[in-house]
Amino acid sequence: MEFIEGSIASPLGIQAAGVSAGLKDGPVSDLALVICKGLGTAAAVFTQNQVQGHSLKRSRRIIDKGGPIHAILINSGNANACVGSQGDADAETLAEWSAKQLGQLSDEVITMSTGIIGQPLPMETIKEGLAEAVQTLGHNREAGQLAEEAILTTDTVPKSATVTFEIGGVQATLSGMAKGSGMIHPNMATLLGVITTDCVVDRNFLQDSLRKAVEKTFNRVTIDGETSPCDMVVAVSSGLAGNEPVGLTEEGAETGDTKTFAMALETVLMRLARMIAGDGEGATKLIDVRVEGAETSRDALEVALSVARSPQFKTAMFGEVPDWGRIIAAVGNAVAVVDPDRIDISLGQLEVCREGALVVFDEERASRILSNPEIIITIDLGRGAFADHYWTCDYSYDYVKINSNFHD
Amino acid sequence: MEFIEGSIASPLGIQAAGVSAGLKDGPVSDLALVICKGLGTAAAVFTQNQVQGHSLKRSRRIIDKGGPIHAILINSGNANACVGSQGDADAETLAEWSAKQLGQLSDEVITMSTGIIGQPLPMETIKEGLAEAVQTLGHNREAGQLAEEAILTTDTVPKSATVTFEIGGVQATLSGMAKGSGMIHPNMATLLGVITTDCVVDRNFLQDSLRKAVEKTFNRVTIDGETSPCDMVVAVSSGLAGNEPVGLTEEGAETGDTKTFAMALETVLMRLARMIAGDGEGATKLIDVRVEGAETSRDALEVALSVARSPQFKTAMFGEVPDWGRIIAAVGNAVAVVDPDRIDISLGQLEVCREGALVVFDEERASRILSNPEIIITIDLGRGAFADHYWTCDYSYDYVKINSNFHD
Repeated sequence: MEFIEGSIASPLGIQAAGVSAGLKDGPVSDLALVICKGLGTAAAVFTQNQVQGHSLKRSRRIIDKGGPIHAILINSGNANACVGSQGDADAETLAEWSAKQLGQLSDEVITMSTGIIGQPLPMETIKEGLAEAVQTLGHNREAGQLAEEAILTTDTVPKSATVTFEIGGVQATLSGMAKGSGMIHPNMATLLGVITTDCVVDRNFLQDSLRKAVEKTFNRVTIDGETSPCDMVVAVSSGLAGNEPVGLTEEGAETGDTKTFAMALETVLMRLARMIAGDGEGATKLIDVRVEGAETSRDALEVALSVARSPQFKTAMFGEVPDWGRIIAAVGNAVAVVDPDRIDISLGQLEVCREGALVVFDEERASRILSNPEIIITIDLGRGAFADHYWTCDYSYDYVKINSNFHD
Repeated sequence: MEFIEGSIASPLGIQAAGVSAGLKDGPVSDLALVICKGLGTAAAVFTQNQVQGHSLKRSRRIIDKGGPIHAILINSGNANACVGSQGDADAETLAEWSAKQLGQLSDEVITMSTGIIGQPLPMETIKEGLAEAVQTLGHNREAGQLAEEAILTTDTVPKSATVTFEIGGVQATLSGMAKGSGMIHPNMATLLGVITTDCVVDRNFLQDSLRKAVEKTFNRVTIDGETSPCDMVVAVSSGLAGNEPVGLTEEGAETGDTKTFAMALETVLMRLARMIAGDGEGATKLIDVRVEGAETSRDALEVALSVARSPQFKTAMFGEVPDWGRIIAAVGNAVAVVDPDRIDISLGQLEVCREGALVVFDEERASRILSNPEIIITIDLGRGAFADHYWTCDYSYDYVKINSNFHD
């Protein structure tokens, strides 16, 4: 498997477009269309927020039916959430318009929306943009990149990753794009992701491996502890690579091919998750909070989460202050049993706390470590053999700036 | 009962002092001493963070013994936390020094420390300050105000409240001081509080009413979702008002006097809690997040908490953006069952969301409401009869500024 310079329009049978429909102010793109020819095998994972957007609810229903998906229409600038029955009707209309233009059934189209909550979609605006998107669909890197840009909200950079891998004797391609960047928290908060591939894959296996890969990657990112009503990751396969279908054996066992596919999927999601954490609203640093020595896997996760979402810790990282007291306070605040006298903490390779108490350390070296764009914090709980981690970012002035003005 | 212009040194038998010992840089006071003559009936509530400071652990042990407390020594600038066995020894030494100077037993002295974690206390510095504090003890408002100033960390204003009330035919006084202002979260995060009174009160009743009053007041404040290792609220009574002891009847029933006392205590804590929320790090506004119509009291609390600690909501309040979408997203993210289609949301008296969807509202009026220094947000879940609330503040640039540089 290797990374290539591709886009979601790289796998065979995938086309993409990104246009400026006018949902956002100014000449910024805000409507993406992704077409999947061939099989259209699809799977998806959805937000766990109890408030769910109208576009998302419709897409969930369609995915649950298990039929093929041949088009994904994504708009930014408006979440199509909390607008009542009009929102449900609008999501259906968008799917119908897309299906008509593309010569498909509306149940083969899913819709994704992200942006401001509580405003009706400007339907006529989208209609014109949709026509333009259909005209400009392309099966090449540039077309995919236009789609990547169109789904962004407060992100500062597009996020995509593409790999090729050999499977069943043929070459397959898998690509993903995603957007953050506030309201990011486990269980898919303000995160849209689209995965495309040409690998032939069993639907149930695709759903299962997508769920597992999301758990290890997107669900290990927290920006601000928030989740949103609109977040989903969808994966579609054209199947045009022509390999034997990848799936578990009749006995439910993995095969070499299932491992290869799962690895490719996880690799792409991993890269996207890191990009999302590093591009959190106002972020200046990517921080990997690693917990070791936990008594249970749940304890490891809870401690990592408590630190990774701590505003006191995150502002300290912004200020490059080696104040490990805030880290240990967040550890003690976790929904997990800890023994304060056994906690070791390191910034990068530099130990700053041993058995719950200070160790004398080189403050200059600590500051140097904290000035890096990527920081690893390691917390050893000294109680067991379980480990887990969370990616997060620092809290800066710009987080406040972005969120006290954001309204598009 | 009425508020008076007093201080913690107002009740009979209480003396206080506040001095600049040199724990913090510059000519700022950082060491407070409170003396309680007479009975010294005492009760306290402590942080629920699993990491606990050395001064706090000692004080908890002393309080648990149930004996009288005649002195409280409080330092800011250093938490005396996470420094190993030296921290335990230092807390004991501070109590011994105080006891010696005051002619008491060391077990009649409790110590409270707040500030940076992981640095040993500068003992000689404190020793000199202690001597000065003992010299300057006073039973008057000014002496109490000096103590109020000495316990502050990132607070911008001292916080105190004093009431007088008639009980059993005599006049009694009850006063409190507290400090915030980051790491404030339910269960007593970075919060020190001292309550003094001259009302004669049964110890168990005092402990019980303190716990209940803290639950309704300090435990309904969240600034940033953090808790700290050092937080405690202690109440001491000189008993010099001379009333019949206030306590439950032998059958465990309340009396007119227990109600009067509990009301005085809760009133003082309520005022302090509001002051803490309004003076959160970088706060420009006090926000009361009220939840009604919950199916259970726990649901009401969890929904209020989810909104009150949401950075997306808090930055919107700073920016005075009437983006109720962030509120409903935080509601949906709560650890409580909600029905999105039944949620109503009001900013002040202005309804902005009905049954989970937008209602057209006057944006100008919304902005006017959000520009007030105190804002009430009401969320009706439409599922039952339970209500609860949280006080919080907005998230501003100054929260980031304070916490990316704070190190004293």
